[in-house]
Amino acid sequence: MDRRKFLMGVGSLAFIRSPIAYSDTSLIDGLKSELIIANKILSNQGVFDAFGHISFRVPSGPGAFIMSYSKSPELVTLDDLAVYDKLGEPLHQSERVSFRERYIHSELYQSRPDVMAVCHHHSDAIIPYTVTNTPMRPVVLVAATIGSKIPTWDPKDYLPFVNSAEKGRDFAKSMGDATVALLRGHGCTVVGAGIREVVMTSIYLQRNALMLSQSLALGKVKSLSETEISKLRKILFAPDSRDRAWEYWKHKLDVM
Amino acid sequence: MDRRKFLMGVGSLAFIRSPIAYSDTSLIDGLKSELIIANKILSNQGVFDAFGHISFRVPSGPGAFIMSYSKSPELVTLDDLAVYDKLGEPLHQSERVSFRERYIHSELYQSRPDVMAVCHHHSDAIIPYTVTNTPMRPVVLVAATIGSKIPTWDPKDYLPFVNSAEKGRDFAKSMGDATVALLRGHGCTVVGAGIREVVMTSIYLQRNALMLSQSLALGKVKSLSETEISKLRKILFAPDSRDRAWEYWKHKLDVM
Amino acid sequence: MDRRKFLMGVGSLAFIRSPIAYSDTSLIDGLKSELIIANKILSNQGVFDAFGHISFRVPSGPGAFIMSYSKSPELVTLDDLAVYDKLGEPLHQSERVSFRERYIHSELYQSRPDVMAVCHHHSDAIIPYTVTNTPMRPVVLVAATIGSKIPTWDPKDYLPFVNSAEKGRDFAKSMGDATVALLRGHGCTVVGAGIREVVMTSIYLQRNALMLSQSLALGKVKSLSETEISKLRKILFAPDSRDRAWEYWKHKLDVM
Amino acid sequence: MDRRKFLMGVGSLAFIRSPIAYSDTSLIDGLKSELIIANKILSNQGVFDAFGHISFRVPSGPGAFIMSYSKSPELVTLDDLAVYDKLGEPLHQSERVSFRERYIHSELYQSRPDVMAVCHHHSDAIIPYTVTNTPMRPVVLVAATIGSKIPTWDPKDYLPFVNSAEKGRDFAKSMGDATVALLRGHGCTVVGAGIREVVMTSIYLQRNALMLSQSLALGKVKSLSETEISKLRKILFAPDSRDRAWEYWKHKLDVM
Repeated sequence: MDRRKFLMGVGSLAFIRSPIAYSDTSLIDGLKSELIIANKILSNQGVFDAFGHISFRVPSGPGAFIMSYSKSPELVTLDDLAVYDKLGEPLHQSERVSFRERYIHSELYQSRPDVMAVCHHHSDAIIPYTVTNTPMRPVVLVAATIGSKIPTWDPKDYLPFVNSAEKGRDFAKSMGDATVALLRGHGCTVVGAGIREVVMTSIYLQRNALMLSQSLALGKVKSLSETEISKLRKILFAPDSRDRAWEYWKHKLDVM
Repeated sequence: MDRRKFLMGVGSLAFIRSPIAYSDTSLIDGLKSELIIANKILSNQGVFDAFGHISFRVPSGPGAFIMSYSKSPELVTLDDLAVYDKLGEPLHQSERVSFRERYIHSELYQSRPDVMAVCHHHSDAIIPYTVTNTPMRPVVLVAATIGSKIPTWDPKDYLPFVNSAEKGRDFAKSMGDATVALLRGHGCTVVGAGIREVVMTSIYLQRNALMLSQSLALGKVKSLSETEISKLRKILFAPDSRDRAWEYWKHKLDVM
Repeated sequence: MDRRKFLMGVGSLAFIRSPIAYSDTSLIDGLKSELIIANKILSNQGVFDAFGHISFRVPSGPGAFIMSYSKSPELVTLDDLAVYDKLGEPLHQSERVSFRERYIHSELYQSRPDVMAVCHHHSDAIIPYTVTNTPMRPVVLVAATIGSKIPTWDPKDYLPFVNSAEKGRDFAKSMGDATVALLRGHGCTVVGAGIREVVMTSIYLQRNALMLSQSLALGKVKSLSETEISKLRKILFAPDSRDRAWEYWKHKLDVM
Repeated sequence: MDRRKFLMGVGSLAFIRSPIAYSDTSLIDGLKSELIIANKILSNQGVFDAFGHISFRVPSGPGAFIMSYSKSPELVTLDDLAVYDKLGEPLHQSERVSFRERYIHSELYQSRPDVMAVCHHHSDAIIPYTVTNTPMRPVVLVAATIGSKIPTWDPKDYLPFVNSAEKGRDFAKSMGDATVALLRGHGCTVVGAGIREVVMTSIYLQRNALMLSQSLALGKVKSLSETEISKLRKILFAPDSRDRAWEYWKHKLDVM
């Protein structure tokens, strides 16, 4: 591995925005461990199956990020993690295969300086909202983090599948400043200020989809208002909520 | 800990209404153990996830109650329990964080002398009934304990989230003498004559919601009549039903 | 225990209709073991929860049957089994509590000489068909055993709850010669030529309910015809199908 | 066992189309091991229950195939596998019972030279599409392998149950060159270029059915186009996708 290139990628760790406390020297190691746990939590909660991926930004100018090579998320270990550059290519050569859709991550880290973690998944629960005109809206307080505007990407000239930097740019443009974007007949992408935030939003996005569908079957639905959503995001991402949920999902890994 | 204050809170145990037999000296200890089991049962049955809380009244004038500090219910142990005063504040100082919504409990214990236990949860199954105008009604005998009138609290000026005594009072007023009240886009609160009653009602509330939704999808629904509901409450809360259910759910903790 | 009374109840074992092979001397013991397994299978498959009961006929004139005392089915052991007489009363005195609804069993064994086993349960999946006018019909081959006519019992003057011999007679009359009968807002009763048949029908009744509901949501449904149902009942209750299913469900007890 | 007959059945292994690498001498053994795992995966993923069967073609002229005797798929071991001839009869005599519906397999291997593996199952999720006129269509990328035309077999003169070679021929004719065919009120049959492909298609067929039903409940559905389906089949059956999914499902066997 090219150490100089790696360091250039890792850059100035002082700017990392995650409020989780690590000693400076172990920051990246801490985030890597969290990424492994995040992979397992999202699998355990049914968000990931054999497919899906989550990454975190290496907080430097070049837009590098860390993600696993192509592998079922539940099986990912520290040895499967790689550093990707801002173009979505692995920083060091390897015989390992990278996820075809890594450009979702690279293009979002480039266009969205607020984004510190990205998750792409295909939860069965959200698919109906990608193939119909029914808008996804948060109906329950705890799902307010998904935001109020959730666009659906449905390119005209090719599959809604991000296997090139160009398609990644098109997807990122379509996503705008949203927290969640749907991909028609495919899945969704969730971004956030850290790994735990993205995990939390992904899980409640999935459950909100089911709750919303069941609500719509009963009649006219009162979903959360814009004001409610922005107030709730602050409450939900406060450490006591965010970390309580994280500890719970982590605990389920041990007992299931 | 301030022992005098604690004793004042605990008060005269002779008035406790739960029909479960404990020796007088171990009454509070017995209830605390039941509360731990209740936390685990409600988690195991999918009523609680990372969130939700259950308390029991310390049967004294001051309206004190016992509940865990802020923690995922499934992880709660005896060391996490605290005594709260009638204003919803912890009786002794601690660095531990209390649930923001503890005022649901304090205000209900104050306004409802019949209530010996309170549970607040966000079961996904009940959410659709909080955001639509479809009334929740018991359709199955075993869910008769939820009662016939289930109001929905939807305050105009703030989030349906009880993070102050004032909001707690407003919620309690809206609940009236009901056994179950819904909170719009948030969850519900269940009260009862004891921990086991509240657990039973919470679990069947969740299942009744799903059964009612599935019934409504089929056509016009014949739900239980007022007369049936009041007859059934007596049968269901009789020790043979109530304790058989409790033992079953407790057993599931060991095998799952 | 009154041994004479017991023997009178057990009667002439030669007439038992179950095609399962046991040595004559161990017939009752074999059936008791099957009943324990049946209790566990029906719990494991979600048909029973804390409630529900299954019995088999002691093949004699007096109409005696064997069932557990009041206990959650999953927890039943050989020590919990009792012999009931044709009036639904336990043959020997005990401090144990009997199921209130044992008269479902006693009255069916009296009025239906073809019935060798009876199961009463409250599977959530079937409740919608008890509170709406949508008829339950088999849509899938493997559920043909539930039969083509499934009446719903909804007495005018009291709860649809069988806590007396009189109500049992009314229920049995309403059931007629059906294999399955629904009880409004309560559950259902399944009868059959043996324990395994009743278990099989109960499990597929539950799954058929869900499949039928999902089918009805899609449009007009072609359910099985009368001719198909009667042909299929023979195929499904043939030992190779019946016992393959039994062995599978039994196996799930070990691995779950 | 008649070894000559066996070898005639096994034929020229050089023509096997599965891209999975085995040493020539262990090819059949490797495929048999995969078949055992496939049985367990399909059970674990809820596609099989006590019923259902999967086979692979012994790649020779005579159209022989390997499948288990009649047994619940989850319990199948190497000792339960038998070689069947092109007429669907076991190549060597045994007291073991064969699946009644083995003619589904024999007739498809005869009429469809492209088919190397066949699976017949009764997943509850797909039944609604067999008894209504709502067409099954892939709505999610990962289910594109089910294809665009999915016929339903509903013979006029007998049960949609393939217990003879004649009925097998009728079914195969009705299936045409499809990857998936439904059997009215019964289940479906899935074919493919190998065991892993058939497992993958079976699992996503089941999940697509649920996603499609949930989508239809929301409104007009945009399913995948013909062009999308044919592009995606190549991507999904490429080893990196196919084997990642296989390894994941295999892993779930160990942890569940």
